[in-house]
Amino acid sequence: MSSAPSLPEGWKSVATPPSLFRRFQFDSYGDTRAFLERLAALSKETGLYPDLGFGKAHVNVTVYGKDGRAPGDHELEFASRATALAVAG
Amino acid sequence: MSSAPSLPEGWKSVATPPSLFRRFQFDSYGDTRAFLERLAALSKETGLYPDLGFGKAHVNVTVYGKDGRAPGDHELEFASRATALAVAG
Repeated sequence: MSSAPSLPEGWKSVATPPSLFRRFQFDSYGDTRAFLERLAALSKETGLYPDLGFGKAHVNVTVYGKDGRAPGDHELEFASRATALAVAG
Repeated sequence: MSSAPSLPEGWKSVATPPSLFRRFQFDSYGDTRAFLERLAALSKETGLYPDLGFGKAHVNVTVYGKDGRAPGDHELEFASRATALAVAG
């Protein structure tokens, strides 16, 4: 077993269904949309498509583990990179 | 009072909180993203920003009434136009 990376800042580990969750707040609809665009690029690169919920100034990201399993390194790395994208300006 | 337009196809009227809801299914992530782009343009035009939840092949749209009131003509028109955008190819 590889040692799992720790949970990125602001993320919660959810037991049922096994997933990682974080809510991101933004100052404007433009910032919200820009973050969603970056997430779309990240999904394309990683092949990982989280459930996304958003309004004018927030985005909720839920990253499920594969096939109902607990999130692993792949999902944790996605969460970490998503967090970086939220502050990429 | 103006006569309210009827609920567009596939939409449900939700009592608490007062809102209109519909789930749209798509064949691909590309179609899903294209619909979200069209919704963004519609939001910009109408000033109405629904809550949107999406995954790889679906989009859930929740249109709230203004200030906690029941959805009115403005929201019903948004729902109707969103429905048309989902089949715009």
